[in-house]
Amino acid sequence: MLVLVTGGAGFIGSNLVDLLRRSGHSVRVLDNFSTGKREFLARTGDDTGTEVLEGDLLDLSFVERATAGVDSVIHLAANADVRFGWSHPRRDIEQNAVATQNVLEAMRLHSVRRIIFSSTGSVYGQSQTIPTPENAPFPTQTSLYGASKSAAEGLISAYAEAGVISASIFRFVSILGPRYTHGHVIDFVAQLSRDPSKLRVLGDGQQRKSYLHVSDCIAAIALRLNEDPGLEVLNLGTDEYCQVNDSIGWITARLGLSPSISHTGGDRGWVGDNPFIFLDTTKMQSLGWKPAYTIRQAVEETVDWIQENQWILSSANID
Amino acid sequence: MLVLVTGGAGFIGSNLVDLLRRSGHSVRVLDNFSTGKREFLARTGDDTGTEVLEGDLLDLSFVERATAGVDSVIHLAANADVRFGWSHPRRDIEQNAVATQNVLEAMRLHSVRRIIFSSTGSVYGQSQTIPTPENAPFPTQTSLYGASKSAAEGLISAYAEAGVISASIFRFVSILGPRYTHGHVIDFVAQLSRDPSKLRVLGDGQQRKSYLHVSDCIAAIALRLNEDPGLEVLNLGTDEYCQVNDSIGWITARLGLSPSISHTGGDRGWVGDNPFIFLDTTKMQSLGWKPAYTIRQAVEETVDWIQENQWILSSANID
Repeated sequence: MLVLVTGGAGFIGSNLVDLLRRSGHSVRVLDNFSTGKREFLARTGDDTGTEVLEGDLLDLSFVERATAGVDSVIHLAANADVRFGWSHPRRDIEQNAVATQNVLEAMRLHSVRRIIFSSTGSVYGQSQTIPTPENAPFPTQTSLYGASKSAAEGLISAYAEAGVISASIFRFVSILGPRYTHGHVIDFVAQLSRDPSKLRVLGDGQQRKSYLHVSDCIAAIALRLNEDPGLEVLNLGTDEYCQVNDSIGWITARLGLSPSISHTGGDRGWVGDNPFIFLDTTKMQSLGWKPAYTIRQAVEETVDWIQENQWILSSANID
Repeated sequence: MLVLVTGGAGFIGSNLVDLLRRSGHSVRVLDNFSTGKREFLARTGDDTGTEVLEGDLLDLSFVERATAGVDSVIHLAANADVRFGWSHPRRDIEQNAVATQNVLEAMRLHSVRRIIFSSTGSVYGQSQTIPTPENAPFPTQTSLYGASKSAAEGLISAYAEAGVISASIFRFVSILGPRYTHGHVIDFVAQLSRDPSKLRVLGDGQQRKSYLHVSDCIAAIALRLNEDPGLEVLNLGTDEYCQVNDSIGWITARLGLSPSISHTGGDRGWVGDNPFIFLDTTKMQSLGWKPAYTIRQAVEETVDWIQENQWILSSANID
């Protein structure tokens, strides 16, 4: 099968590309390399089963060319920067909703039926139901990121209901693991590499968050690739959550450091931060998937990977 | 109060402009006249309290200029063409979501806090709960129109949650009444004016639909204009629904015609048509609003208005 992976040079994308190649699929990577990295594709440099196209999803004719001849699309490319949405308010809707429609239109043009889409638990805003199941109402978006992913989901639903495509929409918690380039673990490791004696934490550190190891994430995607569900929405996360303060303990222990910790205070790290994210993954687990990593293991493996790949600290998008 | 009404030359917009002027407000109309009509603003031609700006919401600098100095915004401009979404798939997301974000950004720039937004019962897709309350889940969009309005709602929610704006989101059923320019009543009257002996109906005519008279719609908007709700979502509709076949009976009786009626068949008129729309309006009624017109009265008054304004049959967007 020839699979188009948008954002295939990114954190999740490049891990997925490796898995697809190991499974015998051919892969076409589409990436604009705004946050994706050529280093993540390096291992597949002499791999004739991997094709890399550099370009932007907002360029419809490029997307149409890139979609010609593929069997399915895994659409991961996105502006994944939740926290800094208010610094560039139009980026989310353009890169997450308009770009997604370009992918859908290209699929329609070439009669490519199958799409897997990376949405987010952020679409639930601050859900009243925790753990949050897929059919929980989400009347109120709390971030531009969540709003734009919800918009993309709506577009995908409309195309699926019209019979144009067959879609799996995955709503992820935060993903950790090798090639991780943005989020609290890298922020904390970066702070501690500058000054191992202190750590500044946004909010009160009591925010309860869920994390999933990238291996578990891409295993779920691969499991659904050959299916034809019409339209399905699937939460992805572990059966547990942690406090940011727990994660800090695991990170500093792994680094062998005992910094003094200061909290900026408040129950949110930033405008639109969600103080409690925990998704109900019963539906995906009933399809034969189960996460292999605990949150602690995922955090520790992420710390190890950053330690072994210090170059990422200078190239990543860090506070 | 100076109120900016986007889409102020349209069906609902121009009726609202008249109401606002009668209530003593100054009005700035923003319209690109793609479906809005200068005839609908004619009565206010020598009215110094009404300013008309011609331009497009996709032009951010224009929207920013138009928003300077206003006290509140009623954002009605939209691509309201549900049925023909698949003929121009990018129009919905551009004109309903991207355009809405331009309005929000212009408000942020000028610190304009209050917005009223016209969303739609279509965001519920095919709801499992009927009558459908505001907090019903809507995981599946069935039309590009619904998806794009849901996207706009998400953006508005995110801006409201961030404290940038205070928003009332109204989810309308189909609106009828004077200056109505698109939908089944004008389609049927147009068909019968070409050939009074026969009428072709999309679907089996048993689709159950809700309609609201434009006077009742704008009364609800006016009632909330001076409020500062933070964020509220309010359904608007009557306490009843009808079948398309009921409406056909009222229309033909009003015209004094007895055409032979042919149905194209199926429970939907077109891809994404919703066979049963009925909204729970308890929330808006608890705020002191009540619709004055029955659906039959709204249909009949619409027929009368079209009869008295036959010019609309040549300029409207009719099947």
